[in-house]
Amino acid sequence: MITFEALFKISYGLYLVSSRDKYHGNGFISNTVFQVTAEPARFAACCNKNNFTAEFIQRSGVFSVSVLHQDASPDLFGRFGYRSGKDFNKLEGIDVIYGKSGVPVVLNDSIAYLECKGVQTVDVGTHFIFIGELMNAEILDETKEPMTYQFYRQIRRGVAPKNAPTYIDKSKIAPKPALPVFKKYQCTACGYIYDEAIEEKKFADLPADWICPSCGSEKEDFMEIVT
Amino acid sequence: MITFEALFKISYGLYLVSSRDKYHGNGFISNTVFQVTAEPARFAACCNKNNFTAEFIQRSGVFSVSVLHQDASPDLFGRFGYRSGKDFNKLEGIDVIYGKSGVPVVLNDSIAYLECKGVQTVDVGTHFIFIGELMNAEILDETKEPMTYQFYRQIRRGVAPKNAPTYIDKSKIAPKPALPVFKKYQCTACGYIYDEAIEEKKFADLPADWICPSCGSEKEDFMEIVT
Repeated sequence: MITFEALFKISYGLYLVSSRDKYHGNGFISNTVFQVTAEPARFAACCNKNNFTAEFIQRSGVFSVSVLHQDASPDLFGRFGYRSGKDFNKLEGIDVIYGKSGVPVVLNDSIAYLECKGVQTVDVGTHFIFIGELMNAEILDETKEPMTYQFYRQIRRGVAPKNAPTYIDKSKIAPKPALPVFKKYQCTACGYIYDEAIEEKKFADLPADWICPSCGSEKEDFMEIVT
Repeated sequence: MITFEALFKISYGLYLVSSRDKYHGNGFISNTVFQVTAEPARFAACCNKNNFTAEFIQRSGVFSVSVLHQDASPDLFGRFGYRSGKDFNKLEGIDVIYGKSGVPVVLNDSIAYLECKGVQTVDVGTHFIFIGELMNAEILDETKEPMTYQFYRQIRRGVAPKNAPTYIDKSKIAPKPALPVFKKYQCTACGYIYDEAIEEKKFADLPADWICPSCGSEKEDFMEIVT
């Protein structure tokens, strides 16, 4: 039997993986970045084949990894995690430097970054694993802790977007009993659930300028969950 | 430039990856286990080619992943992280169940486990990435937190063994200045460093039955670091 809650015990960080083509840059939020060999130092990044950034990495053969910290803004998650670079320029207005290879590196809300040159692309079905050799690594901020997926889920109450390797359909998770007097509202952009029972505040009583703590969408983008 | 300290900002959990051949079981401590696709649910585990367990996974095509908790015993790290199954039966005296595929699953100090059937082996140089389809996943203990590599390094003061993808030669890390009156002692089994300046206790004053907090080796296995 597969108890899907067990998968939440696997630990991940949260990163902004970026790449470029000849003219543009793009990036996406990833939780699957990891070192695969020490000599030479090589890193893997898992990327949905539908991600616009996947095309960029294949074309340019380079990618960067910005390590997000625990206070990373919901706007950044909304922009890079739940929207596509096919629709708008994700890097516009973002604090970016360019690595040796010309790859864009996002600095916003990041404590460190890596720059990698692709050496291998592994097709694993819905996703590619891009394996890159480490060309450059810098610390940007020693004062903050790296954001982990567990922190994002438990403290920030975020959920994985559908393109993530760790996306889990909510129907597979056993629902926890809630008092019937409380309602739940779901963000239509990112799936984040505002649960009145947990927040101890009615959704209707939230201010009009309240935004989704996971992706930064507006209050009006939430829908009541009718069970 | 590569600042190797930046690599410590990448987040990992700590796991016991196990497999079997026809007659025996074996396992090793891994920090590189991660989900690579959601549909179907597939996991990757990175394993040094010299690891005895790598042979077992290649032969049997199955592996299990036990998710270690924060209080996992130093003995377990010593047994599975710093010694080879070529020399002794690692599973002797260990609490093991066998999955549907016959794969051994270590239960000691674990909060959840996964059972995977290998579908792909990727050669990435010194290591293999084994990719397996999830057959089984269970939670064993809801009360404890998963051990992360950061916790292991910072709180437990452990270091990665030489076979780990994240092993970093100490000479690459900029040494932090220490007061000359304090000495450092290194565990010859696992490389753990007892730093008198940090511990605020002389190594000589530790009790005779003190053991390495990282791998469980005895006090007499430590050597003074002469700089």
